[in-house]
Amino acid sequence: MSTREPGTRPAEVPKRPRRRHGLVIVNTGEGKGKTTAALGVIFRAWGRDFKIRMFQYIKHTTATFGEHRAAMRLDIPIEALGDGFTWLSKDMDRTAALAVEQWGHCKEAILKGDEDIIVLDEFTYAMHYGWVPVDDVVETLKARPAPLHVIITGRYAPQELIDCADLVTEMKLIKHPYREQGIRAQRGIEF
Amino acid sequence: MSTREPGTRPAEVPKRPRRRHGLVIVNTGEGKGKTTAALGVIFRAWGRDFKIRMFQYIKHTTATFGEHRAAMRLDIPIEALGDGFTWLSKDMDRTAALAVEQWGHCKEAILKGDEDIIVLDEFTYAMHYGWVPVDDVVETLKARPAPLHVIITGRYAPQELIDCADLVTEMKLIKHPYREQGIRAQRGIEF
Repeated sequence: MSTREPGTRPAEVPKRPRRRHGLVIVNTGEGKGKTTAALGVIFRAWGRDFKIRMFQYIKHTTATFGEHRAAMRLDIPIEALGDGFTWLSKDMDRTAALAVEQWGHCKEAILKGDEDIIVLDEFTYAMHYGWVPVDDVVETLKARPAPLHVIITGRYAPQELIDCADLVTEMKLIKHPYREQGIRAQRGIEF
Repeated sequence: MSTREPGTRPAEVPKRPRRRHGLVIVNTGEGKGKTTAALGVIFRAWGRDFKIRMFQYIKHTTATFGEHRAAMRLDIPIEALGDGFTWLSKDMDRTAALAVEQWGHCKEAILKGDEDIIVLDEFTYAMHYGWVPVDDVVETLKARPAPLHVIITGRYAPQELIDCADLVTEMKLIKHPYREQGIRAQRGIEF
């Protein structure tokens, strides 16, 4: 875990690391901003030299959205699912298998605790569709190293996950008229 | 406005810029994630070489939170208010005057349109407390160059602002127990 904070103390005075309480943060709801807020934490945490790792459960591996371009430049690993499963996928068995495989990697990373923050983006769907058992997720989160922060995003967060989380925010759509007006998703804003 | 997207086309084929529809985005509500989601858009937009400028209405000028450290390294200007007004300020007249002055800078930037994205962080309070007239804000937003995105964050977003916005999200607190448990705000996550 990197706890270094540059410029706060001279090198000759070893600073006892501030005790950190790792949080489980869930961004859920029908509104925008779930993944975006996770990216905001990444931005902030990168500014503090935190070690960050992000797993995506929806976006395609070949996606080069704004966040992928930024992450690549800043050397933040974003690991996408095999073929970018969505609920529109034609082969749901394959999709489920990929989600399970991806969860295996996440679980290993969470238990190992080499990072300061792990983001599981759009992961709630894998639980919602029953591919990854919520119990397994909750047990893994409980068994993680104490300082590790885990952020999970996506709609339909299961109650068991909410019960074990430290911070749950619902993103609620108040107004989103521009889609109805035929305006496309805006590059740099939504992707 | 920078519309360059690196690596998509060879330099000898000039690409007609994709028509951009600037959005007014409001992140409001009592929950966490309003500023954080704005930072997430900044992260994404930075990955696309957008020109970004952020004005803060709450944080202190000398604050070096995670986002300030990241922004400084990435050369994204964050301009804070003179003395970091809060509703706990002792001299509210001075606070109001500073908010008005800051709005003057914002207004100029919005009308000029040199940036691709302008973020007015925690700006709703200045309207809520009556220091900056909502009408002036709405008129300025309507008069801005068409491709400019403006993001406004903070609780108590006035109805007139919501009416003129393209996307409004309410961040709603579902669960936030760790504060009650005496756990402090976590560095790199919340600041």
